[in-house]
Amino acid sequence: MARPTIADIAARAGVSKGAVSFALNGRPGVSEQTRARILAVADEMHWRPHSAARALGRAAPDAVGLVLSRPAQTLGVEPFFGELLSGLQAGLSTRGTALQLLIVDSLEAEIEVYRDWAAQQRVAGFVVLDLTVDDPRPAVLGELSVPSLVLGGPLEPSETLSYAWIDDAEAMLSAIDYLAALGHHDIVHVAGLEQFRHTQRRIAALESSRERLDLRCRSIPTDFSDTEGAAITRRLLASRERPTAIVYDSDVMAVAGLGVALEMGVDVPGEVSIVSFDDSLLTRLTHPALTALSRDTQAWGREIGELILRLVDEPGERVVHQHPTPTLVVRESTARVRRS
Amino acid sequence: MARPTIADIAARAGVSKGAVSFALNGRPGVSEQTRARILAVADEMHWRPHSAARALGRAAPDAVGLVLSRPAQTLGVEPFFGELLSGLQAGLSTRGTALQLLIVDSLEAEIEVYRDWAAQQRVAGFVVLDLTVDDPRPAVLGELSVPSLVLGGPLEPSETLSYAWIDDAEAMLSAIDYLAALGHHDIVHVAGLEQFRHTQRRIAALESSRERLDLRCRSIPTDFSDTEGAAITRRLLASRERPTAIVYDSDVMAVAGLGVALEMGVDVPGEVSIVSFDDSLLTRLTHPALTALSRDTQAWGREIGELILRLVDEPGERVVHQHPTPTLVVRESTARVRRS
Repeated sequence: MARPTIADIAARAGVSKGAVSFALNGRPGVSEQTRARILAVADEMHWRPHSAARALGRAAPDAVGLVLSRPAQTLGVEPFFGELLSGLQAGLSTRGTALQLLIVDSLEAEIEVYRDWAAQQRVAGFVVLDLTVDDPRPAVLGELSVPSLVLGGPLEPSETLSYAWIDDAEAMLSAIDYLAALGHHDIVHVAGLEQFRHTQRRIAALESSRERLDLRCRSIPTDFSDTEGAAITRRLLASRERPTAIVYDSDVMAVAGLGVALEMGVDVPGEVSIVSFDDSLLTRLTHPALTALSRDTQAWGREIGELILRLVDEPGERVVHQHPTPTLVVRESTARVRRS
Repeated sequence: MARPTIADIAARAGVSKGAVSFALNGRPGVSEQTRARILAVADEMHWRPHSAARALGRAAPDAVGLVLSRPAQTLGVEPFFGELLSGLQAGLSTRGTALQLLIVDSLEAEIEVYRDWAAQQRVAGFVVLDLTVDDPRPAVLGELSVPSLVLGGPLEPSETLSYAWIDDAEAMLSAIDYLAALGHHDIVHVAGLEQFRHTQRRIAALESSRERLDLRCRSIPTDFSDTEGAAITRRLLASRERPTAIVYDSDVMAVAGLGVALEMGVDVPGEVSIVSFDDSLLTRLTHPALTALSRDTQAWGREIGELILRLVDEPGERVVHQHPTPTLVVRESTARVRRS
């Protein structure tokens, strides 16, 4: 008989998978009576925990690792990251699991930390962000003894890690289609870091619309900072071939771009329409408020937290999860193109 | 002879305290030759590591704990927290130390986690936020085997923990003095959570100015959310006794308050002046840009990271550190009171 899963035990005991997980991990959340029944069923089914730590009779690590090789400064100003982190923590804390966070200065150092923490059994799993083109991490993580979940994707067929993804291309197309319907054909996409796979997917989505919508469009990669967002906007608005619409890959860049337009006396949305790819408090507080691709980043973080806990319970499982595609929320920064 | 400190060893070996710390903790950062000399000197001086983990011959935990009993949602929208966290991580990562982060739902649960993690030697130290009136945590933490650093203060004489503080009263006075100099006597302070000691100090500073500056002033406590900031502003601006100036305890509330003024057609700063107690990207991106008490939160976080590492190296030490007092940065949201 194959090794029973938590789902098998839950089915036979007539309880939820969550209850089985609580009981097997010795956590509060189920009555003593239920716990005893679940443990009896698990025993009957010859259930044994997977993790090396538990097999050695040691306590399982109560933390999930998040190792980032971004500069710490960019995390502070990015509402996206704060919201993701708080959602992730909320998801993990339903089980009292901590988040072990480390910022390092290179991808090599990041990989070394994955190996160290897995070898030392310091964490029960990893959450991995910022998937890049030719990313070496999925292969490394696939060989470690602790489960990993990649935030981003879809992964290549050769990459067998679990992942949770968002359809960036579909979201980008919804913004472009809307701008084209308003008569915009000169569109610039102020993109994020070009080595990120999700940036590449957004760029490709814009390119794929060029003929279909008769666009004169291009993508300009940046480092995601408000400084570069502002500098590029200044250049675009000062040029002779000024676009009629700009799509920014983050709310921080979009708000900085709006600031430049106001500073230069360029009317938004009269002379240029602005769309932000991220939505946060920032986009709602500006005047004009920004049209943005909106998503619930906290909910996304919470789902990631729940998924990695599921992988910790069932290390053999592979999870592929798709978050809802961001939807375009139209506010005051977009309008029909003005005939000149 | 008293137990030698890292400073003693550094002095005798003729190297920096950082080099001693690297050498004693077996970390990269010093040459093999220097390491050997430092270890010889340490041995000569009968140095022995404090930490129970090291005394037992186990590896010292490479993480510092941060346990929060705030709702996760408030962390996401608060630029202050994101900046503090990234600075803290930057300070810790100079030594490759991770941050172990856990959000719990009550102060009792938070205290239980301190006890558990200390007993399990999961972290080398704790950083403690949001000091409240009659806070039970300093007493509990003072009895644990791992060092703690409180962010806030000054502590009571009976509380012997290390702390790093900021002079909230002095900062508040600088804002109030400035507003009074512009002719404002009707000032409302939209405060944060009233159980926080720093909120109490800001309220007391305003009260202490009432007679001196002939103010008609009051403080209204909130939960720090943009929702409450907006609701209170709506009430204040609709009332007959409308204040001529409002000081908000956070940038999120200040920006929300500005949004309400714009929505109600109340001119800022023509009819009401606005000051934010926190400064971030938010305050610089609004129109008008907000006058704010500015501080370098990332630098503050970095200092906290370095201080807790110092306490980990020297658990017997007590550190009392004062961060620079925030300075008032005047932008476009404050002006002389208009004569009516």
